[in-house]
Amino acid sequence: MKYWNTLLKNMSEYIPGEQPVDINEYIKLNTNENPFPPSEAVLKALRDACAGSLRRYPDPLANEVREIFASQNGLNKYNIFAGNGSDEIFTLIFRGFIEKNGAAAFPFPSYPLYSTLAEGSGIKYETVDLENNFEYNMDHFLKKKCDLVIISNPNNPTGTYCAVNKIRAFLEKFKGLLVVDEAYIDFYGGSAIGLVNEFDNVIITRSLSKSYSLAGLRVGFAAGDRELINGLMKIKDSYNVDSLALAGAKAALLDKKSFNYNIEMVRNNKEYLEESMESMGFEIVPSKANFIYVRHGNCPSKEMYEKLKDKKILIRYFSGRGRSEYTRISVGTMLEIKSLCSALQVIVGT
Amino acid sequence: MKYWNTLLKNMSEYIPGEQPVDINEYIKLNTNENPFPPSEAVLKALRDACAGSLRRYPDPLANEVREIFASQNGLNKYNIFAGNGSDEIFTLIFRGFIEKNGAAAFPFPSYPLYSTLAEGSGIKYETVDLENNFEYNMDHFLKKKCDLVIISNPNNPTGTYCAVNKIRAFLEKFKGLLVVDEAYIDFYGGSAIGLVNEFDNVIITRSLSKSYSLAGLRVGFAAGDRELINGLMKIKDSYNVDSLALAGAKAALLDKKSFNYNIEMVRNNKEYLEESMESMGFEIVPSKANFIYVRHGNCPSKEMYEKLKDKKILIRYFSGRGRSEYTRISVGTMLEIKSLCSALQVIVGT
Repeated sequence: MKYWNTLLKNMSEYIPGEQPVDINEYIKLNTNENPFPPSEAVLKALRDACAGSLRRYPDPLANEVREIFASQNGLNKYNIFAGNGSDEIFTLIFRGFIEKNGAAAFPFPSYPLYSTLAEGSGIKYETVDLENNFEYNMDHFLKKKCDLVIISNPNNPTGTYCAVNKIRAFLEKFKGLLVVDEAYIDFYGGSAIGLVNEFDNVIITRSLSKSYSLAGLRVGFAAGDRELINGLMKIKDSYNVDSLALAGAKAALLDKKSFNYNIEMVRNNKEYLEESMESMGFEIVPSKANFIYVRHGNCPSKEMYEKLKDKKILIRYFSGRGRSEYTRISVGTMLEIKSLCSALQVIVGT
Repeated sequence: MKYWNTLLKNMSEYIPGEQPVDINEYIKLNTNENPFPPSEAVLKALRDACAGSLRRYPDPLANEVREIFASQNGLNKYNIFAGNGSDEIFTLIFRGFIEKNGAAAFPFPSYPLYSTLAEGSGIKYETVDLENNFEYNMDHFLKKKCDLVIISNPNNPTGTYCAVNKIRAFLEKFKGLLVVDEAYIDFYGGSAIGLVNEFDNVIITRSLSKSYSLAGLRVGFAAGDRELINGLMKIKDSYNVDSLALAGAKAALLDKKSFNYNIEMVRNNKEYLEESMESMGFEIVPSKANFIYVRHGNCPSKEMYEKLKDKKILIRYFSGRGRSEYTRISVGTMLEIKSLCSALQVIVGT
């Protein structure tokens, strides 16, 4: 690793959920993908965009989708940034907004990418344990005196939700920058995006990966004060969102009917999943997302993960402190949920 | 700019070529896009990929396209990285391979993104003037004692080409990391990619934006020693290349017949453009790319750019030291070249 710099050498690697080569042989409930396909309107818009005009660069400012997203959220285009997935947005936040001697804080357990990015940027960070019931206590973050706080809301992997008034109360005291990762907010609502009109130190991120069934397309949004958005625009690669992603995002944002129907189906399936698992004696953390965080007294989570994998069912197991007790299971189709529950019945012996 | 860090505040902004809103009313010869559309095979592969599977994340390792690109270039998959355009690859190189107290050197004039990225990463850089005829003299870079050298070959905006044996001779003495940006190499060949098998300190970058007519899709490749590629893989965002970009890239790389035909047409059109402009008294720097770097004694370049813009023809004008004498013109279709030349005849009065 002769040419790696110190940061690259010292950072831990972020490991995304398994994507097996023979993916179609698996029931894949490990990366919170939406079980239903994107709408026909989105697929048609994408196909129409597969044209000679791909020889041209995309709009570097992504003006059209920023306008649509802004108007749907009561904001101005200048408050909105479009990224190559919300992961790119987090990367840019670390690159542009925190001094090298700054400090960050993240909840634990939460999305491990935040700490990976802090390490890759040479920024010190601390983690703040969620309460015993996995709820947020924002007061703990205030005590950390840091420059950047990122929370995931609803939190990944626990599904727990922090109410907007708690976030507002935090922002009234906090002097640093708060990022609220709302990748999963669409499933049950309660977005903090309106706080962008009240505070100049909050960024809300969104993703089309989950609620719009477009994980393959890589589109995320950030909403924030105009100066923050200008900063992201200045530091991003020129053409960070490609032409097809822009076309698909536009169609997805405009097709509210399909979006609402999809959300409704995911919620129904989640209820069925929760009821089935409760009846088997699973302990389920209350979730406002398209996944649940669960454990069962009869079977350690690692064993459960491995036994399900043998049956070609993938769920997400996290190793390490405070993580290994639980597994995270994404909401699938009814057929997938039924297969999962049949397998689990054998494993937990109920 | 209260929340911007020092790097973001101090960096200059990279300004991509104009993308007018009423783009279809312009003859656009300012950003080196290919004048011909992607092949039918590529468009079909893209349309086929606009399917329900977009609800899934893309392959985070981009294995399939890396294998194809590797085998077409006599390399192993482990020597290849796929990026969201080669711009992303340059960004990652600055993030992962250079210490903060390191130094970089780039040719001048060249692609201004290199210095923008150095500024954004807090890395000091110097520029090395090309010779008076815009040729490279790699010896000048050796004297700079720097950790990173990036050259663009053929060079953007001059079109000048540095032979592989000169690059090899440089690498035999250079202890830092050399990046050879080959975004335009496909038009006339002469790639240095084989040097990856000889040296562990060279990265060759490629792009599908120009020679494959896919600027809208954002796909670039890096070839290098396995350890360098591992470093890029470690620091990149998990899913940096989207599913449609992967599908389009695969089809584009495999459709060699259309690729060769496209290259042939661009070369023919370039010859015609050069002959027409020479006959009007333009001075043309010898170019191995799909653009030419020109000036004319009768009309300052800025005036030429503005007068053409009035006629809805966009060429690229660069301001600043050593830049303002020349303009860069991308090779267009025959119709576009004829319109350009008619307009230029009036402007330069021949």
